[in-house]
Amino acid sequence: MTQTYKEISAIARKRRDDALNAFFRVPDINEDTLPRDLRSFPKTSGLLSTEELEIIYSDAETLVQRIKERKLTSVAATIAFCKAAAIAQKLTNCVTEVLFNDGLERAKYLDEYLAKHNKTIGPLHGLPLSLKDNFMTPPHPSSVGMSVHANVPTEKESVLVDILRDLGAVFYVKTNIPTAMMMCETNNRIWGETRNPIHKGLTPGGSSGGEGAILAMRASPLGVGTDIGGSIRIPSAFCHLYGLKPSFGRFPMWGGRPGIPGQDFIYSVCGPMAPSLGSMKLFCETVLSEETAPWDYDPKVIPIPWRKNMIEPKGRKLRIGVLGNNDTVITCHPPVERALAMVKKALKDAGHDVFEWKPIAHKEILTLLGEAFDELGSSSIMPNLQAFQEPLFGAMERMFAGGKASGGKLGPEKLREMILRRNQLQKDYLDRWLATKTETAGPMDCIIAPVAAASAARLGLGEKVDYVGYTGVANLLDLPGCTFPVTYADKSIDHKRGSSFKALSPRDQAIQDDYDPEFYHGAPVSLQLIGRRLEEEKVVEMVEVVSEVLKFQPKPNL
Amino acid sequence: MTQTYKEISAIARKRRDDALNAFFRVPDINEDTLPRDLRSFPKTSGLLSTEELEIIYSDAETLVQRIKERKLTSVAATIAFCKAAAIAQKLTNCVTEVLFNDGLERAKYLDEYLAKHNKTIGPLHGLPLSLKDNFMTPPHPSSVGMSVHANVPTEKESVLVDILRDLGAVFYVKTNIPTAMMMCETNNRIWGETRNPIHKGLTPGGSSGGEGAILAMRASPLGVGTDIGGSIRIPSAFCHLYGLKPSFGRFPMWGGRPGIPGQDFIYSVCGPMAPSLGSMKLFCETVLSEETAPWDYDPKVIPIPWRKNMIEPKGRKLRIGVLGNNDTVITCHPPVERALAMVKKALKDAGHDVFEWKPIAHKEILTLLGEAFDELGSSSIMPNLQAFQEPLFGAMERMFAGGKASGGKLGPEKLREMILRRNQLQKDYLDRWLATKTETAGPMDCIIAPVAAASAARLGLGEKVDYVGYTGVANLLDLPGCTFPVTYADKSIDHKRGSSFKALSPRDQAIQDDYDPEFYHGAPVSLQLIGRRLEEEKVVEMVEVVSEVLKFQPKPNL
Repeated sequence: MTQTYKEISAIARKRRDDALNAFFRVPDINEDTLPRDLRSFPKTSGLLSTEELEIIYSDAETLVQRIKERKLTSVAATIAFCKAAAIAQKLTNCVTEVLFNDGLERAKYLDEYLAKHNKTIGPLHGLPLSLKDNFMTPPHPSSVGMSVHANVPTEKESVLVDILRDLGAVFYVKTNIPTAMMMCETNNRIWGETRNPIHKGLTPGGSSGGEGAILAMRASPLGVGTDIGGSIRIPSAFCHLYGLKPSFGRFPMWGGRPGIPGQDFIYSVCGPMAPSLGSMKLFCETVLSEETAPWDYDPKVIPIPWRKNMIEPKGRKLRIGVLGNNDTVITCHPPVERALAMVKKALKDAGHDVFEWKPIAHKEILTLLGEAFDELGSSSIMPNLQAFQEPLFGAMERMFAGGKASGGKLGPEKLREMILRRNQLQKDYLDRWLATKTETAGPMDCIIAPVAAASAARLGLGEKVDYVGYTGVANLLDLPGCTFPVTYADKSIDHKRGSSFKALSPRDQAIQDDYDPEFYHGAPVSLQLIGRRLEEEKVVEMVEVVSEVLKFQPKPNL
Repeated sequence: MTQTYKEISAIARKRRDDALNAFFRVPDINEDTLPRDLRSFPKTSGLLSTEELEIIYSDAETLVQRIKERKLTSVAATIAFCKAAAIAQKLTNCVTEVLFNDGLERAKYLDEYLAKHNKTIGPLHGLPLSLKDNFMTPPHPSSVGMSVHANVPTEKESVLVDILRDLGAVFYVKTNIPTAMMMCETNNRIWGETRNPIHKGLTPGGSSGGEGAILAMRASPLGVGTDIGGSIRIPSAFCHLYGLKPSFGRFPMWGGRPGIPGQDFIYSVCGPMAPSLGSMKLFCETVLSEETAPWDYDPKVIPIPWRKNMIEPKGRKLRIGVLGNNDTVITCHPPVERALAMVKKALKDAGHDVFEWKPIAHKEILTLLGEAFDELGSSSIMPNLQAFQEPLFGAMERMFAGGKASGGKLGPEKLREMILRRNQLQKDYLDRWLATKTETAGPMDCIIAPVAAASAARLGLGEKVDYVGYTGVANLLDLPGCTFPVTYADKSIDHKRGSSFKALSPRDQAIQDDYDPEFYHGAPVSLQLIGRRLEEEKVVEMVEVVSEVLKFQPKPNL
């Protein structure tokens, strides 16, 4: 007899909570006593020691260095992050599977190995690292927020997990996602909803929202997410993180649980998310080194090792196209518009060539993206949900409208027509990009754009309205993008748009209506930088340049 | 009122023949006076001058050098190849569109440019180059052997054509293909059948069979083909050429006429075909140079410039897996088996590590390949053929059996299941490849395998039976492969298999029954070398190594 999703959820949550409590029981917290910004809690609560706090506020690159120099043990680091993860779970509901025992055992082995052999097993030796729920860490389940998988042991490790372990990483936790990873907020019928640590009334975004929350809580120094429509960038932006969505074929995706198995019209990709740019670079350099050679384990990985000094000559001024306050579909909220202006000014002041980038054909790109998710996704996801009587969230209800109505109308003609349309959109975008070349200067180096309409969206807003258009364009075009923190929403300067605002559509009006300076005060505001296909290294280098001129320190005063 | 294919064919053929005759009228030839091997005809016929003969027997790299040094004009070279093409057409029916006027005009411009500026416009300055019919050279039609396109002017040049022109190439001819490029011999209802210049009773293979024939006739020094199931390698092998089928994303395919528009389950790729390895390298190095940057024009091209010295350390011994005399589906003919033995011995004698490579899962790979062509191709091609009452060739009748019967049964579930199956086959093959690694040696460098069952198949055999399994595996796996000439079939040593032969299937029996030592005597025998994905440079370097130990000169005694 098939269980309902409620019964399955209860089993999964009990497994998680038992594992957390067995290790570190976080006292119940009176919600009313919590500030809007939850990030100071680990310190103010007195639940962690000074040493533990020092560990969790360290960047990944510092941690590996200290472990290598034997100033810190991996066990001590892992214990600190496990405790912090338990706290983060209590505050934000960001955890799915608890791997504390595996992590501590591995950390102990690594400490002993270093002591005995006087060398590390790899460049990530002893580093605790969090994983989005869809990565496989046998035997722990990989639910992707669906009953069908929630309590089923996994058997084969994801290639990336295998690689990171060989590099020395310690896995201690997996994090929450929306149902089938198909929404830009993090809610599902198994684990429930995750909230944003920087502003508890907001979503941390999605689909890698559990990663966003745990990283913003500093309960992980480095995490891995996946992105098919914005799933790395939206939570990274909403949680003031650096999050890299690579082109397809850079980082190994093999052996993860896909949202829509066998869908490759739009590629799902994985990439790092971290509070520091250095931590992200550590991930990229070590996973894509010649020695690691991920192309030996995943047939889709392109054999391009991580390159350096892609901006040539070094230190030259960049040519940057910046999107306006709308992409012809949705207008961004005032704090995001201010962030664009801040970045433009800082870059211009630093001597870079900054100009407006028109979002030509973004609407067509997004229409096709939506078609693909519906045509290829609904027939995969819907039967699984129906089998367990899982109610559909609003965002998915809207997404799968077509597929539900027509019941799999995709045939070979329609598929081929969609592929031709996609390829033409890619070609036209490339042509427009190259057309920015002038007689004296090379083509545009990158585009800077909003990640979403809101700084970070209000919890539950997705039931009524949502929009992944600012990120989805790069998915259909297979372009790399990286987020970077810019500022916080500020009610004293980010005023509500006045009566002169002309909505582009009812949806645009609904999204703009949601902006409330008081409510959004303190929300993290980030932007994304989009580069040319397979130029991930240059994207990271350019984000470094932009972050330097911005001089914004996303770290809260902890 | 729609014309029939016969009316359309008559118009197309008249256009071609008029253009040929206007330039160079080749006298009618009495078929009975022709030897089996047609390659000596240009010389013995007296139709070409000594200088013209010297030109057409030169390699591409020699021609560009001589033109650059002004020892030869591009006009003289183009005239020689135009005349040779007219002769090749008369003997083998390899030509579709005649671009003589465009070519001569361009050659004249290039000669004047060089004289005036004392520099070339690019590394291929003045080099005549032949193109498979599916490349777009406006306004000339691109029929791909189908009525629907046969007399329709084209408007937009293929990206590769544009690039080659900028490099200095001169286009003077396009060459024949089978209907929709979906057969491994070259026959269609518009242009008719092309035959093999090395043995006129044989097919030059397909689908780039016109290229195979014109290159073997030395009526082109360098050509470009495309490959989705063997379409570069089969004609290259059948015509004793070097033919490189790259992985997807190396050479620009944008703007060519696809056989099945919008089909990307199996990638179609383009690559060079040439009588000399040096000519092929010239193409690769110039098209994929940093300066050419094809990734600026085709969104699917991966930004990896052509690399050198991929065998490291230089000169080291290779680890080579060699396929046996069958791939578990079809047994190759005795001359091909002898070629495998020759190569194995020569490599072993030279100190390379040669071992047997088992064709595990080749059958499953080919089953999926067939399914994809049927499911995705029949709905595209069949209506076009039916609209002009074009009768289906036997090979296509067999290929499209499923699609015809079911009328487009492909839906999203089936598509996703096929994609998962394909990816798993790719992963498993990669794992087996990497498992060849030993404690002291790296993994296998390459696989050497037959290109087809026959040295070069009998004309018309495809009406009854055909097989693209030896090549198709690399298409589904997206691996690069390059052909190289090995020997000629020899009735005195390549005896028919005796009664001890146990056929693997009725098809295997039919293909083996076709072998007749007397008939096949003198047929060109080639093999292919398959490398790892995106290692085209290493494949070419390895073919160089193999060709050196083989010491076989494919050039006829001209």
